[in-house]
Amino acid sequence: MNKIRLGVDVGGTEIKFLVIENKKIIYQNIIETNRESVDGIVNDIVAEYKKISKDIKIDTMGVGIPGGIYGDVVTTDNLPFKNYPLQGALEKQIDIPVCIDNDANCAVLGEKHMGSGEKYENIVMVTLGTGVGGGVIIGGKICHGNGEFGEIGHMVIDVRNGRKCNCGREGCYEQYASATALVRRAAEVGKENPGSRLYEYLSNNDFKINGRTFFKIFDEGCEVCKKVFEEYIDFVVAGLKNVESIFDPDIIILAGGITRTGDTLMNAIRSRNIMRVPVEVSKLAGDAGAVGAAYLL
Amino acid sequence: MNKIRLGVDVGGTEIKFLVIENKKIIYQNIIETNRESVDGIVNDIVAEYKKISKDIKIDTMGVGIPGGIYGDVVTTDNLPFKNYPLQGALEKQIDIPVCIDNDANCAVLGEKHMGSGEKYENIVMVTLGTGVGGGVIIGGKICHGNGEFGEIGHMVIDVRNGRKCNCGREGCYEQYASATALVRRAAEVGKENPGSRLYEYLSNNDFKINGRTFFKIFDEGCEVCKKVFEEYIDFVVAGLKNVESIFDPDIIILAGGITRTGDTLMNAIRSRNIMRVPVEVSKLAGDAGAVGAAYLL
Repeated sequence: MNKIRLGVDVGGTEIKFLVIENKKIIYQNIIETNRESVDGIVNDIVAEYKKISKDIKIDTMGVGIPGGIYGDVVTTDNLPFKNYPLQGALEKQIDIPVCIDNDANCAVLGEKHMGSGEKYENIVMVTLGTGVGGGVIIGGKICHGNGEFGEIGHMVIDVRNGRKCNCGREGCYEQYASATALVRRAAEVGKENPGSRLYEYLSNNDFKINGRTFFKIFDEGCEVCKKVFEEYIDFVVAGLKNVESIFDPDIIILAGGITRTGDTLMNAIRSRNIMRVPVEVSKLAGDAGAVGAAYLL
Repeated sequence: MNKIRLGVDVGGTEIKFLVIENKKIIYQNIIETNRESVDGIVNDIVAEYKKISKDIKIDTMGVGIPGGIYGDVVTTDNLPFKNYPLQGALEKQIDIPVCIDNDANCAVLGEKHMGSGEKYENIVMVTLGTGVGGGVIIGGKICHGNGEFGEIGHMVIDVRNGRKCNCGREGCYEQYASATALVRRAAEVGKENPGSRLYEYLSNNDFKINGRTFFKIFDEGCEVCKKVFEEYIDFVVAGLKNVESIFDPDIIILAGGITRTGDTLMNAIRSRNIMRVPVEVSKLAGDAGAVGAAYLL
């Protein structure tokens, strides 16, 4: 008998719902996140569950949420959950088993069940986004530690004179390998290189640039962008090599905005030729979190 | 019924045998390692087993060995095992179940069963010795990865202009946090500080110093030694904080030569006041590997 699973990925701007049967997505929907209200978010999830279950008999539900899960309670940075018993609140209104986990943990679990990690038992997922996040599966199971396992973005890689991080330390990996770090560095280096295509753009835009525009100018052949990107990749690879030394996994799966550059990222990583463990881009991309949430139970 | 366990710790200079019943060591012996011959080592282990089992009915035997265990085979750096099927070779001559594992993995398992990790399920052991080694227990189980899990010493912490490491990378943790790194740095800094007690010693000893002597001069109040040690501790703590961010364990247990300095190490680490996770020195010290080997089965 096939289990029918509902996976919910609660993000800062939208909540994604996927129903999965037999490794196939049989329903999906996205709603806007009510960022102002915990009750609003809970009620929206319950309402969507009730709507779906009119047509589909769902067996289990999993919810991924950005933040720390400590025992029964959730505390998030970008949503209003503070020591909130989310699982209990959902179970009160929903008549099937519910499980919650951190969204990065859900994402790596999604890749294990339906993505780049399907063949593997030991998987590390590294997300190169606004920050750098990590999700780790060892022996087929998500590692939780005490709720903050796999904070790879806060591994210090530049212990002398490192860049200041929000966490209070200096030299954290995410200060070098996040999308934020890439565009910040592009703005710095661009400013020092008048005459470059990058400088021209920056000087017309208040010396600010986003990732999409950076890669547009990069693709146009700007040498300064290339230099910035090559330095960025050196940092990215240094951290991935650390992940390899620490976890010796079967595969490292990359996700996050930077992976949307297609082959640009992977070709640059492969050109360094120092990774022993396979590195691949997430197959599920934006669906990984909801797919993994569906497989929590 | 209590299991009677034999633990064997194969080191570069000696092989330690411990028999454990009900968490108590009921027999111990140490023999010299026959460094020249794999067969010699195997035969010595078998002979000792046969000798012990004349008096004690042993149920299981575990062997810890420095090196990588890949499936059935062992490859060591400092002993002559190269792709050698150690477990099979022992089982041929020994009539009880045998299990082998890496010595650092055994050490952390020993601490879990009879040492500083007894209350915990998630434990990282960091050995500050000639190099820096790591052993990791998650959910009560040793993590193996593909045979090289927890190579914490080869996590790069100094990505720009880092010290060259034997592994081929630059800036590896063990180039800053090993006992070797401490005395090398002491020789460098001492040389630059004529008039210091450290300089005086170095100039009479070909500008070489070992750990024991370093701490002797340190204890005599040499300010240059203090400066070197404080810098060393900054590096040690940076790596331990990384371990905390990555594994979020219940405890970090320190082992290796540096921990023999008594309170000097721990007071310096505590004075930094940045660790969230408890850090303690190994209770079992030199016995940890053999105790853990005994608990492999």
